[in-house]
Amino acid sequence: MLLIAGTVRVPVENLAAARDAAAAMILATRAEDGCLQYAFAEDLLDPGVIHISEVWRDKGALEGHGKSAHMAVWRTAVRELGVRERNLKIYEVGEGQPL
Amino acid sequence: MLLIAGTVRVPVENLAAARDAAAAMILATRAEDGCLQYAFAEDLLDPGVIHISEVWRDKGALEGHGKSAHMAVWRTAVRELGVRERNLKIYEVGEGQPL
Repeated sequence: MLLIAGTVRVPVENLAAARDAAAAMILATRAEDGCLQYAFAEDLLDPGVIHISEVWRDKGALEGHGKSAHMAVWRTAVRELGVRERNLKIYEVGEGQPL
Repeated sequence: MLLIAGTVRVPVENLAAARDAAAAMILATRAEDGCLQYAFAEDLLDPGVIHISEVWRDKGALEGHGKSAHMAVWRTAVRELGVRERNLKIYEVGEGQPL
């Protein structure tokens, strides 16, 4: 599986608009084949920092996500909202162990 | 390295108190030897769901964290605040690739 984790930063004045745009994209993404986990979350200590957490079945599923209509809409929103400091990493992982 | 990812749920009426208790613990944890990443973040779509994101240099560093005084304080807060639905996984990972 592929695990993606990291952050982006949204200008604080654009947070409300970013929440709306992200919500639509998140729900559409969760319905994609091969999407096992997909969430955005707001850092507890640093307003505007959004944590992104994804798990995909395989590379093909992730590639399909990248080509989806909802991601095209989201990329436009990302530009318009000034989302920056993109810091995401992708890891190949097994099932993981419950902690 | 060890990557920990997942969620807990805080009763919405206890979110403000949980933010305060978590903030102190997060800052103390980030100062620990071997802590490479440590953040809590609030789910964008599901109020009360907290995403936890950790990266540790090795098992020894994570074990030291578990024995720390600030984690003992946090565990008491977790009980008192009714934190539940703990769903965390631990993965052995390499450096990961920038996405």
